[in-house]
Amino acid sequence: NGKVCKDPKVVKAEDFFFSGLDQEGNTSNRQGSVVTPVNVMQIGGLNTLGISLARIDFAPYGLNPPHIHPRGSEILVVVKGSLYVGFVTSNPDNRLFTKVLNVGDVFVFPIGLIHFQQNIVNTPAVAISGLSSQNPGVITVANAVFGSNLP
Amino acid sequence: NGKVCKDPKVVKAEDFFFSGLDQEGNTSNRQGSVVTPVNVMQIGGLNTLGISLARIDFAPYGLNPPHIHPRGSEILVVVKGSLYVGFVTSNPDNRLFTKVLNVGDVFVFPIGLIHFQQNIVNTPAVAISGLSSQNPGVITVANAVFGSNLP
Amino acid sequence: NGKVCKDPKVVKAEDFFFSGLDQEGNTSNRQGSVVTPVNVMQIGGLNTLGISLARIDFAPYGLNPPHIHPRGSEILVVVKGSLYVGFVTSNPDNRLFTKVLNVGDVFVFPIGLIHFQQNIVNTPAVAISGLSSQNPGVITVANAVFGSNLP
Amino acid sequence: NGKVCKDPKVVKAEDFFFSGLDQEGNTSNRQGSVVTPVNVMQIGGLNTLGISLARIDFAPYGLNPPHIHPRGSEILVVVKGSLYVGFVTSNPDNRLFTKVLNVGDVFVFPIGLIHFQQNIVNTPAVAISGLSSQNPGVITVANAVFGSNLP
Amino acid sequence: NGKVCKDPKVVKAEDFFFSGLDQEGNTSNRQGSVVTPVNVMQIGGLNTLGISLARIDFAPYGLNPPHIHPRGSEILVVVKGSLYVGFVTSNPDNRLFTKVLNVGDVFVFPIGLIHFQQNIVNTPAVAISGLSSQNPGVITVANAVFGSNLP
Amino acid sequence: NGKVCKDPKVVKAEDFFFSGLDQEGNTSNRQGSVVTPVNVMQIGGLNTLGISLARIDFAPYGLNPPHIHPRGSEILVVVKGSLYVGFVTSNPDNRLFTKVLNVGDVFVFPIGLIHFQQNIVNTPAVAISGLSSQNPGVITVANAVFGSNLP
Repeated sequence: NGKVCKDPKVVKAEDFFFSGLDQEGNTSNRQGSVVTPVNVMQIGGLNTLGISLARIDFAPYGLNPPHIHPRGSEILVVVKGSLYVGFVTSNPDNRLFTKVLNVGDVFVFPIGLIHFQQNIVNTPAVAISGLSSQNPGVITVANAVFGSNLP
Repeated sequence: NGKVCKDPKVVKAEDFFFSGLDQEGNTSNRQGSVVTPVNVMQIGGLNTLGISLARIDFAPYGLNPPHIHPRGSEILVVVKGSLYVGFVTSNPDNRLFTKVLNVGDVFVFPIGLIHFQQNIVNTPAVAISGLSSQNPGVITVANAVFGSNLP
Repeated sequence: NGKVCKDPKVVKAEDFFFSGLDQEGNTSNRQGSVVTPVNVMQIGGLNTLGISLARIDFAPYGLNPPHIHPRGSEILVVVKGSLYVGFVTSNPDNRLFTKVLNVGDVFVFPIGLIHFQQNIVNTPAVAISGLSSQNPGVITVANAVFGSNLP
Repeated sequence: NGKVCKDPKVVKAEDFFFSGLDQEGNTSNRQGSVVTPVNVMQIGGLNTLGISLARIDFAPYGLNPPHIHPRGSEILVVVKGSLYVGFVTSNPDNRLFTKVLNVGDVFVFPIGLIHFQQNIVNTPAVAISGLSSQNPGVITVANAVFGSNLP
Repeated sequence: NGKVCKDPKVVKAEDFFFSGLDQEGNTSNRQGSVVTPVNVMQIGGLNTLGISLARIDFAPYGLNPPHIHPRGSEILVVVKGSLYVGFVTSNPDNRLFTKVLNVGDVFVFPIGLIHFQQNIVNTPAVAISGLSSQNPGVITVANAVFGSNLP
Repeated sequence: NGKVCKDPKVVKAEDFFFSGLDQEGNTSNRQGSVVTPVNVMQIGGLNTLGISLARIDFAPYGLNPPHIHPRGSEILVVVKGSLYVGFVTSNPDNRLFTKVLNVGDVFVFPIGLIHFQQNIVNTPAVAISGLSSQNPGVITVANAVFGSNLP
């Protein structure tokens, strides 16, 4: 899982490689969206490098519901379809910044702020995101507030 | 607001000082809790030092509702009363860690995780928290999700 | 250029937004490649966030020649075509790690190491990269060694 | 001692918990003061979080003598009694910043600077401090200069 | 003083340059030692780079008395003469690590620890130090404890 | 190699010590220069301290050819002879900053930029450098571009 120090002699190109980000994610779920992460869990060579990627697939009208990355900022580019995206600033203002993004549009979500992306049309959408951590974490607000699990 | 570089010659002890953390906060609000922050907004000398304090007052049964500090971890000590506290880990486990704290008990809330504190008895409670940022920020989940403001 | 602190009251969604990453870059140059950066120069809101994106276009057989990002690691995904990519480790081993990437393949270039990407087929290629700095910088080795400019 | 990586499956709330900061420290020593630390040695879950707490008890006229935290800044609040506190800036000015603090007063000691707290009245005093490191360290100047131990 | 952002167009080689570290420092003082710093105050181009140098001259039996760098670790090499050097670890052990260094010997002083260097022979000595900050600061313990100045 | 955590009880002064930086390096090679590093590989006690040293010897007209430190900035002082030194800024300007240095002159090479030092006279030269990492790494551009090794 990226935590084990390898002998440098046995490091190979595959330790910096991941395959499959062209695969459409399965959005047959309640939200109609799915995230395919490419972080230090998938690529051990990302360890200490402070960067990762993710692909996000949206069914028509699919929602990547309000969530937080506790250890990373995000920069997203739409590669297919259109998305309504936004984030909310901290107390006391709780200002909501939103934007409708089309293909080629880029938007930034600062570290630790609640943000979302929603497909607002009747065709699928896809986005690619860069995140400023090899292990940014994801906290889906509704899961954490309403669906947490006792250990 | 702590952002202006002073001429070092005119810095004085008051730039590292704040008074009033013994004052009971006014908990006459819907949640029955109030936070009195002591960060770089209150003490300019905290700039670049990566630390701040807060006092939290709870009315009987008062709740400091689920919230996040996007730029800081928190360590809390109960100085009066009892609190039920907890945080939720990130996806996919969303494990809820909770504890009932009495006077002198200490608990830790890692950076960016959703956490809460609730007074579970019929008398007031008070806690003091240290935070690992001079400007940790606070995002009350309900405010951000249900009460955000359009710019 | 992203260095000026705005009054928070006048920040708006556009400060976190960039448009045009769907535009094909003009590869009519000697190398047959062009990079379209989206960093703090293009999006002021990236300031302090430690992340940026770039789009790289390759003409048939085009080369993004050996270069370094002095302040950032890179994670690249191929979105069109095929690329032969690689980086060289530091002294004394100078090991060359290479890989042929197809659409959906991801590769990592650690901070400060010399790396390259080359289109090895007769059709255009496109990649998207995340970089772990809002201002990662680019040093094209040949430019720096053979084409530097006296101030 | 907080250095061992636990399997996340066996982490429990107790790993983020410490009990006993309400206990009066034993000040029957030459200085008439004692520090009760709550850092990564006491709470393993503080590892990587960059924060800790301490309780400081002072007998009447007790002194927490000049000392340094080599890896952390400190923010202190008086919860009982009165303290005369201060720190000295670096060469060449060696300016002494001092303040008499009463209950509820807060003061900041920047990282690596020599500082002290003294109870200046005939009743006990107590302070709580936040420190910007999970392992800030303490160097009592007199111990280090006059009482160091050969290995 | 290295704090002003220059227009990149007017930066020149001199902004990265300092002359005179070959000059013997004047050790005609009580301690018989003098430090010539080369940090961001002398070379503006060091800003944000996290590194600086210093030359230390010692008269016969001269002492660079116990001091701390609050924001930097130090690595020292003796270029002339012999030095007795040491540092003291933090509480509770306060272990004293010492070594006699001759020309070409190197020693490390970790951040924030009290350390000293003393010329133990009847001829001058010179050392060069690297420090892990563009502005490491110096706190001479005796100055700070016995000779601080009220603002 | 500096990666193993020692029991603090068995740490000794030698863990912070290196001997031999007075030894002339062997410059009988094609470039006529040699670097003697003193980093965490030589001194285990440098671990986490973010600093290291190096001695660079130059034969008459010897060259320390264009290279990069991917994880550190460098500050160099000439202790013998004269050197022509320089670095190149990043794209698009690729400005070359150069300077002729004599004994006692100091120059700075910012992190990740390509730089070189050349002895321009008929007598040997020696420099000492401080680097802002315990493991800065070295990438000789020509080795990396023309002489890399397949794993």
